[in-house]
Amino acid sequence: MISIRDRGLLYGDGVFRTILARNGKAQLWHLHYIKLKQDCAALNIPCPDSDLLSGQLNDLLLRQPEGVVKLIVTRGEGKRGYAMPTHTESTIIWDISPLPAYPTDWATQGIIARLCQIRLSQQPRLAGIKHLNRLENVLAAAELNDDKFAEGILLDVDNNVIEGTRSNLFMVSHGKLVTPGLSQCGVAGVQRERIINWVIQNKMPLQIREVGLDEVMHADELFVVNSVIGLWSIRELEQRRWSGFPVAKQIRLHLEDADGLPVSVTVS
Amino acid sequence: MISIRDRGLLYGDGVFRTILARNGKAQLWHLHYIKLKQDCAALNIPCPDSDLLSGQLNDLLLRQPEGVVKLIVTRGEGKRGYAMPTHTESTIIWDISPLPAYPTDWATQGIIARLCQIRLSQQPRLAGIKHLNRLENVLAAAELNDDKFAEGILLDVDNNVIEGTRSNLFMVSHGKLVTPGLSQCGVAGVQRERIINWVIQNKMPLQIREVGLDEVMHADELFVVNSVIGLWSIRELEQRRWSGFPVAKQIRLHLEDADGLPVSVTVS
Repeated sequence: MISIRDRGLLYGDGVFRTILARNGKAQLWHLHYIKLKQDCAALNIPCPDSDLLSGQLNDLLLRQPEGVVKLIVTRGEGKRGYAMPTHTESTIIWDISPLPAYPTDWATQGIIARLCQIRLSQQPRLAGIKHLNRLENVLAAAELNDDKFAEGILLDVDNNVIEGTRSNLFMVSHGKLVTPGLSQCGVAGVQRERIINWVIQNKMPLQIREVGLDEVMHADELFVVNSVIGLWSIRELEQRRWSGFPVAKQIRLHLEDADGLPVSVTVS
Repeated sequence: MISIRDRGLLYGDGVFRTILARNGKAQLWHLHYIKLKQDCAALNIPCPDSDLLSGQLNDLLLRQPEGVVKLIVTRGEGKRGYAMPTHTESTIIWDISPLPAYPTDWATQGIIARLCQIRLSQQPRLAGIKHLNRLENVLAAAELNDDKFAEGILLDVDNNVIEGTRSNLFMVSHGKLVTPGLSQCGVAGVQRERIINWVIQNKMPLQIREVGLDEVMHADELFVVNSVIGLWSIRELEQRRWSGFPVAKQIRLHLEDADGLPVSVTVS
């Protein structure tokens, strides 16, 4: 339970992380903490200390070693009104849910995705941040009203392709790995960052830029990533079909390396 | 206290009202309920019954007859993930804060406002709704870092003038009352609606449309309204000064008529 005066509830004034826990270990915790700290800084929310959070996370995983961990950090309570309180004590919230049971062929054979009708708004001050203002994602997810659709692909108001409803998007196009830039909208997830860094370190061709729908529909490969699903190739999107996924397979091998890779650059 | 699994906290998946209570009476409650119901419908959130809410509100005002009442209705709890649960039980939250102590000359002599730097994003699916995704308002309010500024005026990404950080904006220009249209962003408040209806019923000239900054700076009068402040004329905005406010005075007389007026049309 949290206070009804917490700004996380009143204004969505907070940030969160979704973390996969297996065998009592939080996957990619160090990357999640770095991103949490960046997101808190972007909203001027004091970020709880790494040791404090690690200790709380360990206690949680001792009780329940497997599941999807949600960590929320809000600006805490304050006086009535939008103005940020002068002295804030951030609220820390932990929760854990059972591991989701996705059909196994989604990871191996790819998923069917659809294009969402809703367009993401552009707000550079909030772009990239995993904050608690997620009504656009709620409306987008409501468009996936058929179980056959594993994910929905979102465009922004300028018809740039941005991301999935709960994932980041990559495509392989003309021999290059391409992922949409997130300077105007979208959430920059840690799996996206891992892939970007791995590709850069391996000197593979990469572009982070505006992506049009036409290009997506003509891509050689498409895949979505997040911390819970890992990587899903898209095998069908609005009548267009793909198969094979050689680049995605190579990247998935890397993502499944549980130790991950150090983060040397940050791209958003 | 509310559950940490409430979608109001997790996604800002809910709507709210801010209601002025005086002498044990909630001002304009019937208008607030109509707007609550419209906002719930826009997000497909089941709206609690009017009698239920009225009863809870009366109980609250018996204990504390004066203050600013906040009513929040969220989509309630559901499974992990953005998708709306099939069966939802809305969460109802009531809170009451002391009446704010604004300088008395703000209502009589007008306020000093500033232009905010942040631009409102455009999202027609959420425009007009008083929902819980309010990070833009939080960032805007943070720009009012000097007590002399009573309000901040917000433009959208296309540089249309939209509203105040917590109020709706009107101007008098070439003998007409003008208020920005809210089809792309902004919150359509009940005081704005009252004024629109009163002006229409009195066959006074009114325009609801796109408004540019240049027009605002050349207006004959400017004022902001909401349910708590009532009406504040703007006497200074970025070096431009106004005085007199004859139209605002006339409208304030109407707003202070405690019975209000029936709502016959809805404009957003």
